[in-house]
Amino acid sequence: MLTAAEMLDNLEKFACLKRDIAEINIDPLQRGGILTPEARQALIEWGDGYSVCDFCSGAIDQIKNPPIEEFIHSALPEFLGIDEVRVTHGAREGKFAAMHALCEQGDFVVMDGNAHYTSILAAERMGLKIEFVPSSGEPGYSITADDYADAIMRAYEHKGNVSMAVLTYPDGNYGNLADAKAVAEVCHDNSIPLLLNCAYSVGRMPINAREIGADIIVGSGHKSMAACGPVGVLGATEDLAKLVFKLSSTKKNKEVELLGCTVRGAPLLTLMASFPSVVERTKHWPDEVEKARQFSAKMETLGLEQQGDRPHDHDLMFFKAENLYEISKTAKKGRFFLYRDLKERGICGIKPGLTRQFKLSTYQLKQDELDLVLKAFEDIIAAYEKHAKP
Amino acid sequence: MLTAAEMLDNLEKFACLKRDIAEINIDPLQRGGILTPEARQALIEWGDGYSVCDFCSGAIDQIKNPPIEEFIHSALPEFLGIDEVRVTHGAREGKFAAMHALCEQGDFVVMDGNAHYTSILAAERMGLKIEFVPSSGEPGYSITADDYADAIMRAYEHKGNVSMAVLTYPDGNYGNLADAKAVAEVCHDNSIPLLLNCAYSVGRMPINAREIGADIIVGSGHKSMAACGPVGVLGATEDLAKLVFKLSSTKKNKEVELLGCTVRGAPLLTLMASFPSVVERTKHWPDEVEKARQFSAKMETLGLEQQGDRPHDHDLMFFKAENLYEISKTAKKGRFFLYRDLKERGICGIKPGLTRQFKLSTYQLKQDELDLVLKAFEDIIAAYEKHAKP
Repeated sequence: MLTAAEMLDNLEKFACLKRDIAEINIDPLQRGGILTPEARQALIEWGDGYSVCDFCSGAIDQIKNPPIEEFIHSALPEFLGIDEVRVTHGAREGKFAAMHALCEQGDFVVMDGNAHYTSILAAERMGLKIEFVPSSGEPGYSITADDYADAIMRAYEHKGNVSMAVLTYPDGNYGNLADAKAVAEVCHDNSIPLLLNCAYSVGRMPINAREIGADIIVGSGHKSMAACGPVGVLGATEDLAKLVFKLSSTKKNKEVELLGCTVRGAPLLTLMASFPSVVERTKHWPDEVEKARQFSAKMETLGLEQQGDRPHDHDLMFFKAENLYEISKTAKKGRFFLYRDLKERGICGIKPGLTRQFKLSTYQLKQDELDLVLKAFEDIIAAYEKHAKP
Repeated sequence: MLTAAEMLDNLEKFACLKRDIAEINIDPLQRGGILTPEARQALIEWGDGYSVCDFCSGAIDQIKNPPIEEFIHSALPEFLGIDEVRVTHGAREGKFAAMHALCEQGDFVVMDGNAHYTSILAAERMGLKIEFVPSSGEPGYSITADDYADAIMRAYEHKGNVSMAVLTYPDGNYGNLADAKAVAEVCHDNSIPLLLNCAYSVGRMPINAREIGADIIVGSGHKSMAACGPVGVLGATEDLAKLVFKLSSTKKNKEVELLGCTVRGAPLLTLMASFPSVVERTKHWPDEVEKARQFSAKMETLGLEQQGDRPHDHDLMFFKAENLYEISKTAKKGRFFLYRDLKERGICGIKPGLTRQFKLSTYQLKQDELDLVLKAFEDIIAAYEKHAKP
């Protein structure tokens, strides 16, 4: 047990920490957040504390130099296809802000069964009841608009006031892209606003909230927009924006749900610095989908099974791997063998200990890098299978 | 009017923005946020998106490598003198989280009249009524424990349930340090938890919540802990921590008020990287106070008047300057003359347009830099006064 004084001695361990990761990181939540060279420059230029506030006259989204106002009020609304946008600390904070502004404690929120845990936490923090829209389960885990209609009916049967629906687009487990347009129609038939959680899509693929019919949209800078976290975007239709971005009754120009300003530091400038590249890369989304499909097909020839939508429409993919699970039963280090064997081959991103099922992403990986990943899986499986034979 | 397509053309303007500021920035909200060299390194090393999540097994405060767990569960509680600490997006987000966890809609919060606007916004977002503790007004703007007792009584007279008191320590306008210990005693006599807003103290001066008797404490990484924003700290006594850091009822290891994790990117690592220097610099706080007092005395010889506590106990100081205001009436560019004339001399941080009253900070400025600032004020005043004479 350290004494109090000792606890504040020897703090140098916090000062120069290195990020010890392999060259190829296939963790879906890392693939879309790798900084562009411009964002890296922005970090250095704007790193100090509250740097963006030097030229602020009271509202961060109205700063003209750097051109934050143009970014937030012109570029982002155009990019997301929605009337009003603000920058947030991330998708989860955007979801909570929207729920807090639009729902009353005790209301129901209808949410896809594949939802990210933070959608559930946001609802829990807001005191909402959740009516889940169950997926079809293994292997497709699909969710339809009819399922939303059923879930809304169930909530009504509980005498609930349904004040929001949430669809995760795509979900973060299987990378499934439900028919969001049809879901929006069902929601609107019931006068329920639809929040689209696009943490894995905005910044990766073209997304237009207006075309889909989403009333609220959230995106994640660190997950999919090549920005330094925490930073995200929250968009709303004109009508809902009046509530979500409501001004304080006493503090001029300060938006209540954002507590005045949100990202008052370098992460916002990294989001801006990467934005030109991010807009550009969404135009090449069909190539990313093609790459993911080819990767999936090759993984299946090795005995793994891709779950979720088939053919797959997203770089985030979930695999079942009974063969790797079998190996883990006898391998040295047991279920940690896969993590170790991949890392030895310069690959990380599958959580230590997982073998039987895991997700990964092919996003922005070059073909030779994907070949390396495939070769690694092939070699690992072959090595153990050879060893296992008599 | 730009067409939709044109809005997403020519985005390069967002890519390589420079931070055009003068060499000496006397803005109080910038002085404590300047990165250490170690923090600058951490930004580069950990800049990518969600970088700290590579080794996470479900809760950011439990990550062992980098040693986030030790930082959050040992170093920060010791540094702040409080039982439990978590990292937040900043002081305002910490205040809202505490209010959201501990107060009910319609409750009263008792708050110093010098409170930062974000305390008011946090209460407004939470649907709380505010009973203000008025300051003594010009020139001292002081607030006493007796004033708190009176405000609590007034709230009770309104049949209010007072579920929190907030003291800004120091306040962000005058840099006044009220007798926080006495305020805590008054609050505790009424069984009201005291939240101490230490955005301008934690990381600058020694602060121990336990010694003061504060039940909740918030600090700001970007304002006073040499970290890249947004990042802050939120501490609570053991009893209140159970509520403020309550775990989700359905999602294992996820804290509801934090929506699971808060700062999932480089700003957290900058907070850690600067921490050894920050701990060290708080030990030299008496030197900073002495420097501020000497600076204030010299400003007063130039005809400005320092408001707030006298002698002053903090680097953040508020000046009244009738002489500068007089100059602004006839100067070229009017009230913007001071901003321009200071910038020409390599100094920024006083908001453009302010002349009659403004705040500034001497924190971490070297004596020769302070001499430059004083010389600048002296020269500016002399130049116009000379010009004004017949």
